[in-house]
Amino acid sequence: MDEIKVIEIAKSLLNFKRDYVVKGIDDDGAVLKIGKKYIILTSDMMLRETHIPEILSAYEIGARILTANVSDLLAMGAEPLAFLLSLAVDRDEKFIYELYRGLSDYSKHYNCPIVGGDTVKGDLILSGFAIGITNKPLFREGKINDDIAVTNDIGRVYCSIYLYNLYKKGKISYKEFLNYAEKYKNIMEKLRKPVARMEILDVKEFLHGACDISDGLAKEIRYFKNFEIYGDKLLKSIPEDVLSFCDEFNLDPIKVALNSGEEFEILFTTDKLNKVKKHVKVNKIGKIIENGQYIDGKELKDIGYVHKW
Amino acid sequence: MDEIKVIEIAKSLLNFKRDYVVKGIDDDGAVLKIGKKYIILTSDMMLRETHIPEILSAYEIGARILTANVSDLLAMGAEPLAFLLSLAVDRDEKFIYELYRGLSDYSKHYNCPIVGGDTVKGDLILSGFAIGITNKPLFREGKINDDIAVTNDIGRVYCSIYLYNLYKKGKISYKEFLNYAEKYKNIMEKLRKPVARMEILDVKEFLHGACDISDGLAKEIRYFKNFEIYGDKLLKSIPEDVLSFCDEFNLDPIKVALNSGEEFEILFTTDKLNKVKKHVKVNKIGKIIENGQYIDGKELKDIGYVHKW
Repeated sequence: MDEIKVIEIAKSLLNFKRDYVVKGIDDDGAVLKIGKKYIILTSDMMLRETHIPEILSAYEIGARILTANVSDLLAMGAEPLAFLLSLAVDRDEKFIYELYRGLSDYSKHYNCPIVGGDTVKGDLILSGFAIGITNKPLFREGKINDDIAVTNDIGRVYCSIYLYNLYKKGKISYKEFLNYAEKYKNIMEKLRKPVARMEILDVKEFLHGACDISDGLAKEIRYFKNFEIYGDKLLKSIPEDVLSFCDEFNLDPIKVALNSGEEFEILFTTDKLNKVKKHVKVNKIGKIIENGQYIDGKELKDIGYVHKW
Repeated sequence: MDEIKVIEIAKSLLNFKRDYVVKGIDDDGAVLKIGKKYIILTSDMMLRETHIPEILSAYEIGARILTANVSDLLAMGAEPLAFLLSLAVDRDEKFIYELYRGLSDYSKHYNCPIVGGDTVKGDLILSGFAIGITNKPLFREGKINDDIAVTNDIGRVYCSIYLYNLYKKGKISYKEFLNYAEKYKNIMEKLRKPVARMEILDVKEFLHGACDISDGLAKEIRYFKNFEIYGDKLLKSIPEDVLSFCDEFNLDPIKVALNSGEEFEILFTTDKLNKVKKHVKVNKIGKIIENGQYIDGKELKDIGYVHKW
């Protein structure tokens, strides 16, 4: 089984709709039309075992669950309205205090009040729900010949997890891990303190479609159906420290960029890339084409991250 | 630590508000004012270990998470608009199919489309999020001299869990468990197939306040601050089979009614109980008073269910 099969089952069975449902199970978020506005609903779940590296502090974990959900709203072109956190926890008061402190600080940054949730006893799970509002929702789509671009840069999260796994699997000592973490500071920082790209709202009117990069570019870009990625352009979206890291650890930077998840960068399509560039730091990586899924003329094989069991 | 302390910490730190937030962390759901309408947001989480007796089928588990969330919306006086399910799961296709089949059937019953969620690999967790809409949200409040009443009846869920625990702890055999389950059919049925009280929306205009019974009457009624419960009235809200069960297992039916959780009945205040009674099956159990929390003139000691660790 994997999550793709689960979503298939869900889509086949959960077919009861009402007229205000613009978009159900199928995107970063659901879309309801309420009056003249569109309400966007997103949810994102993090389990200690699979989603939360031990090196994250409670503060960073709290910030992270909000970032993941706000990022989904932004990918739909929506302004955050409110957030709810359902929390399973069995930790002490200090941990919980720090977790909520992270949540609180980021709620101010995203202008997004935390309005509720549920609390139960259990191994750490954070299940977030966010609601946003927009005049024009963005879906995972683009027009033929649209540019495909990403905000900021990509690749750092893959490297940070790679490093963390070397340590977890006993291939480097904790001291070595700390030395590398110091050497590749910005790489570790992106894992610890990802930031949802609020600035995308400033250029929303120029975009044809968007999604956020949660499970790797190679998985997310497939939602846009037909595309070509240009390797040389993609390389330019990879920051210098990731290139050095790839050199040191013998990794292919293109593979790193394609499979780096939890980046919370926005992947989008536009025919007005120059206008977007005036407001937001972005890198073109490809184009929407008529038919096929390619990288430099060859079929894209990477698939990003899929939950399996 | 317990959930009450967690909620205290959350309330003290999560203080960032915006003007459309009518109610944050403090009720069955949060309330946002969008245009002239009130949007209600609720979340409810179920973990295999603590919330899902093994005897429930996948179908019943799917139905249950929706019922728990819709019940919170109804307690706020809101009509369900949509539901999202975040699911951690490591089961086979048949289990997942049945779970979504339960969800699908109940989504039709509650007129509530399922519009999204998140899927990850893990021990079974269901984290639900529902959005509703209303002209007049109901809070957990009442006026002095209001009647306090509950929909339908209470007590069965306590008995069903009691029976289940006798079996789980090896005090009765599985065969004995099945015999009792057959004898107390309606008691087991309430555990397996709880139904959120949609009919409460028909009498919403007559209510001053409401909440749903998730963690036992003794816990929920405290949200109304000052009240007196009348034991003789409360007894009348307990169905015959619960009285027989209490007799057979030497339980105090009043204690059972006070501590029976996950009933998904609505506890409410009104000064027009006769009008409510014309539309919905309800039982008066007490009154809102000026000061104090009493049952038959004595301080209420029971506290219902609180998550602790």
